Amino acid sequence: MLHPDRYFSPDPAQREIARALYQHIAQLPLICPHGHVDPRTFADEHFSFGTPTDLFILPDHYIFRMLYSQGIAMEALGIPRADAGAVENDHRKIWQTFAENFYLFRGTPTGIWITDELETIFGIDENLNGESAPRLYDALVEKLAAPEFRPRALYEKFNIEVLCTTDAAIDPLESHQKIRASSMLPSPRGRGDGGEGWRGDIRPTFRPDNVLNLDAANWRANIDALARVSGIDVHDYSSYISALEQRRAFFKQMGATATDHAAVTPYTNELSKVNAENIFQRALRGAADANDAAQFTAHMLIEMARMSVDDGLVMQLHPGSFRNHNESVYKKFGADKGADIPIATEYTRNLQPLLNKFGNDARLTLILFTLDETTYSRELAPLAGHYPAVKLGPPWWFYDSLNGFHHFFDNVVETAGIYNTVGFNDDTRAFASIPVRHDVWRRATTNWLAGLVTRHILDENEAMDMARELAYGLAKRAYKLETGDWRLANGNDRVS
Amino acid sequence: MLHPDRYFSPDPAQREIARALYQHIAQLPLICPHGHVDPRTFADEHFSFGTPTDLFILPDHYIFRMLYSQGIAMEALGIPRADAGAVENDHRKIWQTFAENFYLFRGTPTGIWITDELETIFGIDENLNGESAPRLYDALVEKLAAPEFRPRALYEKFNIEVLCTTDAAIDPLESHQKIRASSMLPSPRGRGDGGEGWRGDIRPTFRPDNVLNLDAANWRANIDALARVSGIDVHDYSSYISALEQRRAFFKQMGATATDHAAVTPYTNELSKVNAENIFQRALRGAADANDAAQFTAHMLIEMARMSVDDGLVMQLHPGSFRNHNESVYKKFGADKGADIPIATEYTRNLQPLLNKFGNDARLTLILFTLDETTYSRELAPLAGHYPAVKLGPPWWFYDSLNGFHHFFDNVVETAGIYNTVGFNDDTRAFASIPVRHDVWRRATTNWLAGLVTRHILDENEAMDMARELAYGLAKRAYKLETGDWRLANGNDRVS
Amino acid sequence: MLHPDRYFSPDPAQREIARALYQHIAQLPLICPHGHVDPRTFADEHFSFGTPTDLFILPDHYIFRMLYSQGIAMEALGIPRADAGAVENDHRKIWQTFAENFYLFRGTPTGIWITDELETIFGIDENLNGESAPRLYDALVEKLAAPEFRPRALYEKFNIEVLCTTDAAIDPLESHQKIRASSMLPSPRGRGDGGEGWRGDIRPTFRPDNVLNLDAANWRANIDALARVSGIDVHDYSSYISALEQRRAFFKQMGATATDHAAVTPYTNELSKVNAENIFQRALRGAADANDAAQFTAHMLIEMARMSVDDGLVMQLHPGSFRNHNESVYKKFGADKGADIPIATEYTRNLQPLLNKFGNDARLTLILFTLDETTYSRELAPLAGHYPAVKLGPPWWFYDSLNGFHHFFDNVVETAGIYNTVGFNDDTRAFASIPVRHDVWRRATTNWLAGLVTRHILDENEAMDMARELAYGLAKRAYKLETGDWRLANGNDRVS
Repeated sequence: MLHPDRYFSPDPAQREIARALYQHIAQLPLICPHGHVDPRTFADEHFSFGTPTDLFILPDHYIFRMLYSQGIAMEALGIPRADAGAVENDHRKIWQTFAENFYLFRGTPTGIWITDELETIFGIDENLNGESAPRLYDALVEKLAAPEFRPRALYEKFNIEVLCTTDAAIDPLESHQKIRASSMLPSPRGRGDGGEGWRGDIRPTFRPDNVLNLDAANWRANIDALARVSGIDVHDYSSYISALEQRRAFFKQMGATATDHAAVTPYTNELSKVNAENIFQRALRGAADANDAAQFTAHMLIEMARMSVDDGLVMQLHPGSFRNHNESVYKKFGADKGADIPIATEYTRNLQPLLNKFGNDARLTLILFTLDETTYSRELAPLAGHYPAVKLGPPWWFYDSLNGFHHFFDNVVETAGIYNTVGFNDDTRAFASIPVRHDVWRRATTNWLAGLVTRHILDENEAMDMARELAYGLAKRAYKLETGDWRLANGNDRVS
Repeated sequence: MLHPDRYFSPDPAQREIARALYQHIAQLPLICPHGHVDPRTFADEHFSFGTPTDLFILPDHYIFRMLYSQGIAMEALGIPRADAGAVENDHRKIWQTFAENFYLFRGTPTGIWITDELETIFGIDENLNGESAPRLYDALVEKLAAPEFRPRALYEKFNIEVLCTTDAAIDPLESHQKIRASSMLPSPRGRGDGGEGWRGDIRPTFRPDNVLNLDAANWRANIDALARVSGIDVHDYSSYISALEQRRAFFKQMGATATDHAAVTPYTNELSKVNAENIFQRALRGAADANDAAQFTAHMLIEMARMSVDDGLVMQLHPGSFRNHNESVYKKFGADKGADIPIATEYTRNLQPLLNKFGNDARLTLILFTLDETTYSRELAPLAGHYPAVKLGPPWWFYDSLNGFHHFFDNVVETAGIYNTVGFNDDTRAFASIPVRHDVWRRATTNWLAGLVTRHILDENEAMDMARELAYGLAKRAYKLETGDWRLANGNDRVS
Repeated sequence: MLHPDRYFSPDPAQREIARALYQHIAQLPLICPHGHVDPRTFADEHFSFGTPTDLFILPDHYIFRMLYSQGIAMEALGIPRADAGAVENDHRKIWQTFAENFYLFRGTPTGIWITDELETIFGIDENLNGESAPRLYDALVEKLAAPEFRPRALYEKFNIEVLCTTDAAIDPLESHQKIRASSMLPSPRGRGDGGEGWRGDIRPTFRPDNVLNLDAANWRANIDALARVSGIDVHDYSSYISALEQRRAFFKQMGATATDHAAVTPYTNELSKVNAENIFQRALRGAADANDAAQFTAHMLIEMARMSVDDGLVMQLHPGSFRNHNESVYKKFGADKGADIPIATEYTRNLQPLLNKFGNDARLTLILFTLDETTYSRELAPLAGHYPAVKLGPPWWFYDSLNGFHHFFDNVVETAGIYNTVGFNDDTRAFASIPVRHDVWRRATTNWLAGLVTRHILDENEAMDMARELAYGLAKRAYKLETGDWRLANGNDRVS
């Protein structure tokens, strides 16, 4: 059912060029430098995705927020309640509800992803609706039971070159350690055999939000956990900084090349050491207020940039989400349930302190993301088009979409060029959606480039080169993923 | 002169599909759930629109603001002065001035509407300019004298299924009562005969701004009027609430299915009963300040949502207009003279208190409008794509235009889908512009859907279904206008 | 290499109409009402542009900011250091660095301008890259040595009708006086001969920022300079106002038709005479603070509007740039080095005081610019579509681009029409880029108009007329440059 020219312009001249550009880059390996796939998926070679409902619905807040918006209770979708209250646990029934309402996703990225996944990964070329739901469920169950639908096998099938997960600073990275151990085992049949040893390149990303943001849920307990995993007694600002440095070093040793930071705003502001210590002590005593939290995050973002200059980890910043906007949903179902709503975000003034300190230092790579598209042309492209340290991340979250990509190209490139951008991030929890997400990006980029060729702004050679960069090269270089096998680089011999 | 493919993409593939989709839905009846047509227009079966100047120019601030911006005095356009000072009263002369300057509207919706109305309603297929002005004036005068150009006849000709007006909370709805009385009369020749009884479905909408916003002109006098029409002695917050509830019940009995609220910002915040009472008492004494007014409106919006949960009236919110920006024009000519200028508007934080209280309640339908297009993708679509109560109104005012529609589709649908939107509102004072406004919407929607079909994002069946929903079904359901004949439902038998 | 249909839509129907419209207006003379070309360029008939590096790289912060963003030191590009520290002075080497990195400008306006200039002005039809760099350098050196590449000759070749420079209020306009003196000399071979007398119409623009903004670098010294050039002892607010009026009169006598104002925000607010005097006295003593500066600028913008009503100079406002964002670059290299970053800008509330005082006065023309595209449809078009005094400047700076133009048309015209806009400004320091900048504008406007024709929103006659207005007429009239030869009007006879 999927048309080979899908998502390209209907204009025949543009479509022909888009097709040629796309064919040039469609088979390049996938670089996945930022996302939320659970590393446990790969830690056990026998890991199974479970039912179709486990795979498609339960982990995907894009899906259940839309159903919820139309009055379907989250309980009916099997979303676990924080109070362990009863929820639907018949996965066939949940799938049926989803299928009957799948028309809600017409014209949305989720609609595109699901339709594409069903056909290209599971070979299902039938529309998903209430009538077909039971048939498709059975077909999916059968597929998912097969060894070739285990995560490690799909990793190979998807042609992933490297996949970075996102991990709390206090995470001991046990799954990553298992994956690493596996990579040390003999693998007589070579990479991707599903045998005893597995060579998949899964790396952690250092995400310290829940120890940096004083208003994080359980901040105090997280500090204790930080002390535990780092082996450093965190009792003051200095030991806190040391513990963070220890964790960064450990993550780096485990293959991390990047950190990631969420903040309501990108406000940065350096505190004196005394002020930082005072706020930290208040926080330890449970006496920090909202202003303390804002000031401390503003300070720690600069401190993270300082550490990045020292240890070379690429710094990512994802600001502008008002998390858990729906208090009743948060209380009942917890975080990440589709109730995070963007807010207007200011970068020019907010980032100036950080950039004045480290923005001219080429040792820092600061990758900025946004949920406020108005900042693309007004703030982000001018910043990236000037500061050596600043690069722009691809369209994020709601903007990981055809229009989101279109707006990004139209608003960023004229000012920043493509070489101050970092290619694509799939940024997903839904492992099986990774290939289609990259494919939509690749189709959108080649269609955009074809538009420039038809308007005689680029020639085809330039467009070919840029298509390759946008699909592969920019992400690999920006995230420092081009340096060969990090396990060897870290002194870990392996038998192969 | 009007081209049958007007407003469609020039791409042949997209145009062909757009044409097919459009033909599928072009003849559907018009649902007009929000607008500003004066109900007196229909109360008297002999109502006449007056001169061409009365019909086209005097009620339309889109027109005279543009002429004024080019240095043409409002007096020369016959706009009445508040001080009853002299203004041009030769309607032919005003028409001539308008026609000579009609080129100013090239590329604007007003230009499209006027051109279309002249041809499709009045059969005039000549360009409007200074040379043709007298001829067109004569032709229009002749048409307007004919019975088939009376409002009730045009209502039938326009194929309007239902039309909602907007009425102050203190309005006794006399015209609506007359229309209702007319509907009770025998109508042997059936609906739309223009005979003694008339079956047009004209409904009021409850708009309480001038009793909710303490800084409204004449707020104190309006409270007295509220007491009068409700029969409730409004002397404190409780009696005020009771009076509002009484009015809502009366409006509902008269056919209203919705309320409408304007506010400078969508700020919501619940007051304690004591604080609400204190502010209300200060206001009664004329001692409320600007902060009181802001807090009271913020509180009353939540209170209106509470009443909607109780009585089922759909709640509309139109924030973000800085009214009467030009003080000298306001003093000379009063409100609604083209000097209302939009401001940046914030919904995510401002609506949280209301949504936390009632956003999860499917009994509430809260339809949000905006004059700040940046909020479509950043705030409004994420809110509508999550909260069961929230739906998005169509592009409003300056954005009731081809580009306005295009931006809406491109920025809303990927996140909220179309099923969290409510189709079209013509929102006009200019009754004769209703068909063309709906037609432009229908052409824009089918053209947009055709674009998705050519890109293989939708198939044609899906697009057909969505086109019908956008033209007809969504508005009818969202505004609860699908429940058969409300007059019968309210226990009013009628002879037919 | 340049394609004759470049920048037009690939749609064949639209392209054909665009081509016809473009051919209709491509040869119209250039009106250059706002820009930053150094008037010394024309004051000496033997002025030479220097090396290709002098011409293309050193004055163009669009170029070196992009190279800097990719880690190339400004010193390596020959940008002079404030501390006179060593920088590269081998212009061939700088050119080579530029050429090797020219691929960074793919898809940017700078890429378009440079490529077009090399071919259309210098006859170079080879790609610029590291390999071709030395050849192209040699070719350019040869061309630049020829008399036909002197500024006055290029002015004629470019078919410029009038060019306005931007000059500090305290500038004695020596170059303008020299150009004027030249125009008085006999010129037997007529205009444009490069002979003793030269008839180029070069006019100053009054830019008083550095005496209006109390926080301007060297404000106190600038006041002394103001006193010197005006001959008025500036010791209080009244004498300050008189000195400004004297300078405006002098600029007007030298041909100026406009003023220009930069401000971080468009905030306006009238001070009482006492408050204005108090702030001014504090500033003279060096005791004014940031709030004083903000209030004084807010007041002086209204005062400038008042003077414009009196003397007829068109008032331009360019707000919204956070200047010198990168403090280290500013300290090392000074202002205008590509480190000015836009900020969100508010016009509706900020301009109300000025507009309430003078917005209804047709003697004032206030031309508004923005670096915040969100304000086009939300604030600027509604203001321009109402107030007689307000007009909108073309896309500015980062938005002087194909997408910038597209966004402008799509967001402004439906509300304000084109007749409340003022055509094009090239706004450049780079004299040789003027023709291509106008050409891109003309191609973009005709392509946009062709899109409206193919959608049957305009007919071809209307589009022809609008194309001519956008290319020529609107700028000429809005800037009052249509009044024949100002030198004669100012009583300066000349021999011709």
